[in-house]
Amino acid sequence: MDATVKAPYDPRTFRALSWLDVTPAFAAGGDTPRDYLERCLETVRAREPVVKAFASLNEGAARAAADDSTKRWKAGKPLSPIDGMPIGIKDLLETKDHPTQFGCEAMTGNYPKRDNAAVRVLRQAGAVICGKTVTAELGGTHPGPTTNPFDPARTPGGSSSGSAAAVGALMLPAAIGTQVGGSIIRPAAYCGNFALKPSQGAINRGERMATSMSTHGPHAGSLADMWQVAIEIARRAGGDRGCRALAGPDTLPAGMKPARLAVLETAGWGVTDDASKAAFAEVLGQLAAKGVAQADRRADAAIDAFEAAILEAARIATDITAWENRWSQRNILDEHPGQISARALAGLLKAEAMTPGDYESLLDERVAAMARHAALASVADAAITLSCPGPAPHLVVDKPGAPPAPNATGNAVFNYPSSLVGAPVVTLPLIAVGGLPVGVQVMGQPGDDAKVTAIARWIWENVAPVTA
Amino acid sequence: MDATVKAPYDPRTFRALSWLDVTPAFAAGGDTPRDYLERCLETVRAREPVVKAFASLNEGAARAAADDSTKRWKAGKPLSPIDGMPIGIKDLLETKDHPTQFGCEAMTGNYPKRDNAAVRVLRQAGAVICGKTVTAELGGTHPGPTTNPFDPARTPGGSSSGSAAAVGALMLPAAIGTQVGGSIIRPAAYCGNFALKPSQGAINRGERMATSMSTHGPHAGSLADMWQVAIEIARRAGGDRGCRALAGPDTLPAGMKPARLAVLETAGWGVTDDASKAAFAEVLGQLAAKGVAQADRRADAAIDAFEAAILEAARIATDITAWENRWSQRNILDEHPGQISARALAGLLKAEAMTPGDYESLLDERVAAMARHAALASVADAAITLSCPGPAPHLVVDKPGAPPAPNATGNAVFNYPSSLVGAPVVTLPLIAVGGLPVGVQVMGQPGDDAKVTAIARWIWENVAPVTA
Repeated sequence: MDATVKAPYDPRTFRALSWLDVTPAFAAGGDTPRDYLERCLETVRAREPVVKAFASLNEGAARAAADDSTKRWKAGKPLSPIDGMPIGIKDLLETKDHPTQFGCEAMTGNYPKRDNAAVRVLRQAGAVICGKTVTAELGGTHPGPTTNPFDPARTPGGSSSGSAAAVGALMLPAAIGTQVGGSIIRPAAYCGNFALKPSQGAINRGERMATSMSTHGPHAGSLADMWQVAIEIARRAGGDRGCRALAGPDTLPAGMKPARLAVLETAGWGVTDDASKAAFAEVLGQLAAKGVAQADRRADAAIDAFEAAILEAARIATDITAWENRWSQRNILDEHPGQISARALAGLLKAEAMTPGDYESLLDERVAAMARHAALASVADAAITLSCPGPAPHLVVDKPGAPPAPNATGNAVFNYPSSLVGAPVVTLPLIAVGGLPVGVQVMGQPGDDAKVTAIARWIWENVAPVTA
Repeated sequence: MDATVKAPYDPRTFRALSWLDVTPAFAAGGDTPRDYLERCLETVRAREPVVKAFASLNEGAARAAADDSTKRWKAGKPLSPIDGMPIGIKDLLETKDHPTQFGCEAMTGNYPKRDNAAVRVLRQAGAVICGKTVTAELGGTHPGPTTNPFDPARTPGGSSSGSAAAVGALMLPAAIGTQVGGSIIRPAAYCGNFALKPSQGAINRGERMATSMSTHGPHAGSLADMWQVAIEIARRAGGDRGCRALAGPDTLPAGMKPARLAVLETAGWGVTDDASKAAFAEVLGQLAAKGVAQADRRADAAIDAFEAAILEAARIATDITAWENRWSQRNILDEHPGQISARALAGLLKAEAMTPGDYESLLDERVAAMARHAALASVADAAITLSCPGPAPHLVVDKPGAPPAPNATGNAVFNYPSSLVGAPVVTLPLIAVGGLPVGVQVMGQPGDDAKVTAIARWIWENVAPVTA
């Protein structure tokens, strides 16, 4: 594949890397984790010059880890089903054999010799930490250099830009992203990934505890790999302090047909293109044909009440996170004057003008939205909506002197609601619009990570992908 | 006072430094913050060689800040009532003009150029950051060099050893401590301080978010100063992410006579010396004489149920915190092999043998204790008990090759319950036993920080100190 040319995405034929499909060959002797890694690195060499998914690569450490894994598989003693799996780590998580630079000029050269809790237990499970994947600056909206693997003129989404692009470009079978607003689900949707944004607190964030709505989650080329990465982390690292861990079976949950789905519009409906809406309608039509009942805001008062509660989700979520990040960001700016973007600075200044009372009002709004969401539990098995308002937009180029362009990594309007209420979400690469991926997401009640995954699996196995 | 000799503590005559009593003289021109600071530094020079309260001092930065404050007071424009107040910061909190070394060999020379949220807003309120105060290693139980200001052969308590000792030795009017088990209230009680352990989450911990039961809180020489420091921080920095801030009046709440107090024994009663028990009984007798009704576990089933729930508070709290700290502590040990104490290592190894399920069982026990505590709200206005099981014990010297001695910074058995249930506590220096301070604590429902302070004030103003 010529990486410099557009590569139209067709969900009917696209095949991302998978890991669990290959591991039987490790046991049988026909393949090895080291060979798997070399195939990944070959793709990295071919595509990275354009895709730019990595903030750092450590091929030597990866090869050594893959060789160790190869020996374990040959001895019949893998540490876990993901022993040897090449994986990327979003460059917000400390990783002791890589710098951690947050996609931020001020953090250039930052190299703590520490492992985030998730990174540490991935190593314990035998996973091969290949590199740090590009994050939008400080996990915000100022884009890094990464391009969309299906069109280099478009954004991969953010802030987990490199994680999504590395999986979409077939460089890696899986990568860890993080989400405070839409930073896992949106880039996954733009890059044709499967991804899980877990329930708030369900996967231990280690040192990254500063914000109340952040989660780690896996991007992967298959649902089975996605779940496996999540459960291997959660079984070893647990949840956040004070929280219960993501729970569920040792391997991908069996598919579960939902009796009824709540169909959400969110504030995103008005900015979604007609082709994406039509494709989503076709997905819903297929579900209806399979006997899945559906209700939307016009049919159900509880859904309508939730839709009303999340109209302002973007503002509430953004302002809560800005307030929570202001201490660390001001410290960075004090130490490195001028070395954060105009986008990040605008958010910081807005947060610094807030009072604790302003923040507590936002928390009240969040609690109200959570209550409206909890009420959906008696209405439907899960909610379904688009993961993004259409395919990835074109890259933006900020004009010197002008205010930064909005939505430089795409619009997270479909993602703020689940972040706000702490709900688990799985995105499926079910739709293509104009040769570019568009995701469909399944969202459940907090704690329902396995159920949401089971429903997503059933949908994936029973709905034909749609191209528009 | 000769700092090398025992200085018997008598709560009837002991006068710690106070700040708010002095500020009228700044406005009137008879005193200045710079002069106040110089008096503090003179005491530091006299007593620090024995007390060893400071991990670092920055006299130059303190003098510059005090001079700035002096100008503001002269101009009639202080930034807050604590503008110019010399304050110490426990050496677990990042402070950009001081190293942050956690009392741990492995962290020697650690000097992040960052301010903890509380430190940043103390500066915004004009407070003078004088130095970092000694912490027991990593906020645990392995003691630093600090000695008790009333007997250098005894512990000041821990882990906020230096904060408590600096206030008790009249070096500073106030200092910030932190508590996960008993690390504010116990050393404060051993050193004759007033101190507030706020409701969990009520004071923004900035970067120190790793554990679910940690709070920042002020040690001070008076209730008025204690409250002022707490409210000035909370009004600017708010609470932890996701939490409401400590709330209450702009200055020390008016005294509030409690109608009824729950008298707690906790698991500590059995290890408390008879003199301390007798002194506490005299305090209760004075309260009864003033018309304050009291009930204990024998008189009230709800109190008895709470006493039963907190019998294991030490184990539950210690193991929860050990699990939550294991990521950061293992990272420290990986980078600096051998450079943490045997005490810290034992806790880390225990935590690493735990599973997420073990941790979640502990969380369940915590939730149960919280429910039992909530039930006390209808029984009494607050709870009262000793802050420590008698005066500070003698310093321990670990024998090479032998297991570390237990309770090297004293026994926190009276403190784990409030930490476990997230309750606010104020300790009052009401008792002396054998010429050493013993505290009495008032504990309320989460969010009742101002009410607890108001009740503590009423008790302080209506109960004569007791010597035994």
